[in-house]
Amino acid sequence: MKLGLNLSFAVKRWMKPEVLAAMCREIFDVNYVQFTWDLIDPWWPGDVRDEFAGQYARAFEKRGIEIGATFGGLASYSYPQLLAPDPKMRDVSETFFKRAIDLTRAMGVKAVGTPIGGMDYADARDPETRAALYREALERIRRLAEYGRQKGLDHMEIEVTPLITEFPHSPETSIRLMKDLEGSAIPVKLLIDWGHALFKPLLKEEADISLWFKTCKDYIAAIHLQQTDGQWDRHWDFTNPDGTLTPEYIVEKTKEAGLENIVSYLEVVTIFEDDDDHVLDGMKKSMELLRRACAS
Amino acid sequence: MKLGLNLSFAVKRWMKPEVLAAMCREIFDVNYVQFTWDLIDPWWPGDVRDEFAGQYARAFEKRGIEIGATFGGLASYSYPQLLAPDPKMRDVSETFFKRAIDLTRAMGVKAVGTPIGGMDYADARDPETRAALYREALERIRRLAEYGRQKGLDHMEIEVTPLITEFPHSPETSIRLMKDLEGSAIPVKLLIDWGHALFKPLLKEEADISLWFKTCKDYIAAIHLQQTDGQWDRHWDFTNPDGTLTPEYIVEKTKEAGLENIVSYLEVVTIFEDDDDHVLDGMKKSMELLRRACAS
Repeated sequence: MKLGLNLSFAVKRWMKPEVLAAMCREIFDVNYVQFTWDLIDPWWPGDVRDEFAGQYARAFEKRGIEIGATFGGLASYSYPQLLAPDPKMRDVSETFFKRAIDLTRAMGVKAVGTPIGGMDYADARDPETRAALYREALERIRRLAEYGRQKGLDHMEIEVTPLITEFPHSPETSIRLMKDLEGSAIPVKLLIDWGHALFKPLLKEEADISLWFKTCKDYIAAIHLQQTDGQWDRHWDFTNPDGTLTPEYIVEKTKEAGLENIVSYLEVVTIFEDDDDHVLDGMKKSMELLRRACAS
Repeated sequence: MKLGLNLSFAVKRWMKPEVLAAMCREIFDVNYVQFTWDLIDPWWPGDVRDEFAGQYARAFEKRGIEIGATFGGLASYSYPQLLAPDPKMRDVSETFFKRAIDLTRAMGVKAVGTPIGGMDYADARDPETRAALYREALERIRRLAEYGRQKGLDHMEIEVTPLITEFPHSPETSIRLMKDLEGSAIPVKLLIDWGHALFKPLLKEEADISLWFKTCKDYIAAIHLQQTDGQWDRHWDFTNPDGTLTPEYIVEKTKEAGLENIVSYLEVVTIFEDDDDHVLDGMKKSMELLRRACAS
């Protein structure tokens, strides 16, 4: 399995490009990272945004670490984005994602990824509104793919989320989305997150990683790893004793599905008030456990 | 106790102004709400941002509900803001908070509140850097107060957070901040959150609400209510069986401190993948429990 690291763990803790890149090389020893928009908000004024983008990009490049994609984080996920209740809000989201593509290209990175957005209570429960929002989102994603092509992106990644008020949430709706986006200016692919795929309250018998991998295999561009109990979308590190996954099981299932050449990024979302050193200790141990499982 | 409601519970669930305001009146029956920037991002283009600000403001006004303040949410809290490691990032944060003041005034609201920001690992552990960041933040807050005065704000609120990497985190540092901001263009006050004030891992014997209220009383502009276990900053609703607070205890302590005329806003931060109806049920029951305790 190709092990990578999403930088969410570093949000509000290790924000200096040189320090963070050095940690990734010297402590975690990873060759692939996924950059989170929680470190640079795509909304920031373009000059400052791109200056910091360049600083991060150079710091990682110097250490031979590839930034596989820039990715939406907690901040962007707090908004309804492309599925917002009002068309003007959806326009704003499209502008936001274009700015995220600009940020990505300022880093010299070739892929961008995010969940699509979330629906209002009433919209999600009205079949016609759901269908209309879905259709409109397809158009907007196609426009973003065209914008990405112009800017030099290689592909885009859509993250599957465990909510019935978001698209897509299941193996079947993920495949449908991929088919509905065929022929886009650049390929639009899937990012599968172990914790989302195994979220039992929503997915029930579909909370089965083999089913996900088998169904979606041709479209999977990247994978998120997390420790979870399947009851909530935990994003724990692998030292958490309440988790039901093991690194060995993850490596085995990834290999079994023929996905060992796709990068699997550990994505730990920390509790804000957790102590920095405690977070770092958990991250060190988790990456060690995952590296060991990859090697065996 | 004056009971209010922070709108964080509605993020990505009930985003239509008329529907949300109707819920606040008909289901929760509150007279005071605190608007969260997670519903409108201050970074959104000014025309769209202010159009939605107006829609929300009119929907609440029509129902006789006062918006006491607009307040930072999960998205803005994901960034280091005024304590970021680079002065250009801190400039960006100052711009962001000015935009939040613009949003506030577009709603006709007279107060704005937020935590100040968070420090990088190394900066937080270096006494000289800490002191320099603190001094610079004071200057920036004074400039924001001046901007707020020009725009017609009445006062600003700084939220105390339970992190040693943020300012302020304790009763003593809160009072020091208030004294250091004396003479600002408009008053800068404190928002105390029950869950932050009772966070034992950091505060130990200072995790004592009577101590907080007694020490900070003269500066408290608003209060956040949440159910918590004191082990993490939970922001649970009051149906959670693992919480250690009771509405009766909260009302009693608030009265004892002479803070019964300050608005205490319930601030529930929901788990994204939680079911909308489950969230609504918990919010209904929580507001009922709190209202009953206020009345008795």
